[in-house]
Amino acid sequence: MVASSTTDIRSQALACRDAARQLAQLSASAKTDLLDAMAAALEADTDAILAANARDLAAATEKGIGTAMLDRLALNPQRLAGIAAALREVAALPDPVGQVTRDDVRPNGIRVQKVRVPLGVIAMIYEARPNVTADAAALCIKAGNGVILRGGSEAIHSNTAIAASLKRALREAGVADAALTLVEDLRRETMLALLQLNDVIDLAIPRGGEGLIRFVAEHARVPVIKHYKGVCHLYVDRAADPALALRLLVDGKCSRPSACNSLETLLVHADLAPSYLPLAAQALAERGVRVRADAVARQWLPDAEPASEEDYAAEYLDLIIAVRVVDDLEQALMHIQQYSSDHTEVIATEDAAAAEHFVHALRSAVVMVNASSRFSDGGELGLGAEIGISTTRLHAYGPMGLEALTVERFVVRGEGQTRA
Amino acid sequence: MVASSTTDIRSQALACRDAARQLAQLSASAKTDLLDAMAAALEADTDAILAANARDLAAATEKGIGTAMLDRLALNPQRLAGIAAALREVAALPDPVGQVTRDDVRPNGIRVQKVRVPLGVIAMIYEARPNVTADAAALCIKAGNGVILRGGSEAIHSNTAIAASLKRALREAGVADAALTLVEDLRRETMLALLQLNDVIDLAIPRGGEGLIRFVAEHARVPVIKHYKGVCHLYVDRAADPALALRLLVDGKCSRPSACNSLETLLVHADLAPSYLPLAAQALAERGVRVRADAVARQWLPDAEPASEEDYAAEYLDLIIAVRVVDDLEQALMHIQQYSSDHTEVIATEDAAAAEHFVHALRSAVVMVNASSRFSDGGELGLGAEIGISTTRLHAYGPMGLEALTVERFVVRGEGQTRA
Repeated sequence: MVASSTTDIRSQALACRDAARQLAQLSASAKTDLLDAMAAALEADTDAILAANARDLAAATEKGIGTAMLDRLALNPQRLAGIAAALREVAALPDPVGQVTRDDVRPNGIRVQKVRVPLGVIAMIYEARPNVTADAAALCIKAGNGVILRGGSEAIHSNTAIAASLKRALREAGVADAALTLVEDLRRETMLALLQLNDVIDLAIPRGGEGLIRFVAEHARVPVIKHYKGVCHLYVDRAADPALALRLLVDGKCSRPSACNSLETLLVHADLAPSYLPLAAQALAERGVRVRADAVARQWLPDAEPASEEDYAAEYLDLIIAVRVVDDLEQALMHIQQYSSDHTEVIATEDAAAAEHFVHALRSAVVMVNASSRFSDGGELGLGAEIGISTTRLHAYGPMGLEALTVERFVVRGEGQTRA
Repeated sequence: MVASSTTDIRSQALACRDAARQLAQLSASAKTDLLDAMAAALEADTDAILAANARDLAAATEKGIGTAMLDRLALNPQRLAGIAAALREVAALPDPVGQVTRDDVRPNGIRVQKVRVPLGVIAMIYEARPNVTADAAALCIKAGNGVILRGGSEAIHSNTAIAASLKRALREAGVADAALTLVEDLRRETMLALLQLNDVIDLAIPRGGEGLIRFVAEHARVPVIKHYKGVCHLYVDRAADPALALRLLVDGKCSRPSACNSLETLLVHADLAPSYLPLAAQALAERGVRVRADAVARQWLPDAEPASEEDYAAEYLDLIIAVRVVDDLEQALMHIQQYSSDHTEVIATEDAAAAEHFVHALRSAVVMVNASSRFSDGGELGLGAEIGISTTRLHAYGPMGLEALTVERFVVRGEGQTRA
């Protein structure tokens, strides 16, 4: 059935680009209606989608896939209703397309505006979660983009069923359904061919483990926005409020350890270590968090194992935390600069000058003062929804919302002005 | 002398990154002073720079290089004063670093700002013009970035002398002079090694001919902002003011034919062709412009040659223009969508609805109504100066000023808020 992956994927991508041009012309209200219709289509197709998901789950169980992965893959009526609700939330967001971000009249009288337009065609490369199929499609389409979805093989039946619903809604809105293209040919050479289409695809966003992201970054000729990992730091300054710093520690480490915005390393100012670390040890122990600490910190952390160099670079995504006592703010900054993944760093302090120095000295995507690292998320930061988190410094840096799926271009209006 | 290009270029880039971190911490006024000092250093070193340039010119003459290229390469006291003046203009521009582009308080009380930070390290890859060495360095440094300059071999002595002046100003300001790194090893494998350093270099900007840009885009693992070519269109609508449309044609084609924002194709509505094209023919003939036109247009263009498919795709950069008569606005849009280089498109019309449709339907980086394509330039659009023009839709689209050399990141301030 699949003849030449290179030819097929190129013609699919070209069809997506043509359809994207239709999407780019839709009014804000037409896109809102379209996304609401997509949500309704998912709800109407609940039985078919759950049946497809059952096939994926059966195959995954047969393969002996772990429970964590099975849980990521599993849909049920409640989860599907959640996906539909998320589409309606995206539908209700302000349309970024057409937003004027600059509006100047030049001395010669020409009026220069910068106006947001869609990027064009976005390729999402992702792993087992079928909700990404709907979430990513909704965000791309809301911003007027075509979307090419290349999910994991474990979720292929679920993804196909979800895409079929969403494509029906597109057709019923009079948009060519290639605007949402699900890649069903999951051969590696087809993904490689997709990643070479730099004359058709404007951006690729890989979402998943570091291996997937490195593979995409390694092989792509299309622009890629990467999120490698989140090694998030909490620095408890000499001037920290210990109770506040304890809340940030517990929330940052324990509220969802598998999230990339969870804390992985705690740095504590030497002056505060004797009073703070025993409290931290107790709070962490109560929640089953294992601690790996440097020799100084272990004086107040009786159950801690020694921390190695690797611990400071690790993204545990688990109930484990690395701890180090630092002499001062400068040493904390040096530690963070050395081990940072450019994701999120937090300072707990009541000293405004220390807070500003921390913010100014660090270049991570998100820098926080007296707030939990767990707020490093598109929804929490007010972006409405999030298509990914960029840890590279081009186009977008940090959580990416709808605006990150557009680009600003120039619109100039004159009355016949010339340059010469 | 040059042992291992791969090792050397990597250590040079790492030194540039370290120095860039110093630059990123400088205040706006410190950067202004630094750039003024760079301008003064160039003036103080006029004799040495002109002597170095004379060596480049002698070598180029010996190689039998064409006069256009010799002119691009040549410096004289006046041109060098112009370069110094351009540095002072960049010095006086507002600092983009620290600009707050979003400032929200979330319902839970956390304050979320988006704040511009430098990109980090920018590699400029360019050809014969030695002024780029100073211009690009000034813009990158003003935006707090380190810059790696890889110019053409024809200008190596001029570039080395200019870089030596600028580096002295950096040192005198207390900044490690690796913040400005001129690559003196011009072997192709060294450039290839440079373009692989995606863990050190945040952006590469090639400036020069299409061959250079394709080479960089082909081989780079670092992010690249590309500007392939400018096939700029002027569409003269049925409702155009003929005199205004004639001014835009003459200015767009003739004021500087070698510029990428010059017109390459003229499209004329069929209803206006009988009255407009004879005027156009005369104005173009008076200025020595050769015309290549379709059969319909040639009825009113006695001296025109037939236009081929290639003519509509050509960036002439010369006193040549392609002309076509179109049935209506839709046909003009289809022509532009087919042949556009995504650079700049202009409509001449007094019909507001036609103008808005033109603007909305096209996705080029710059779209203009009743203004010359020659305004598609960072300075003319109010960006102060320009480091390049992007014709790809990520990060920046169209003329790139200082803002395009930064990225927005998040700064969050709370009073101990947690998520769970």
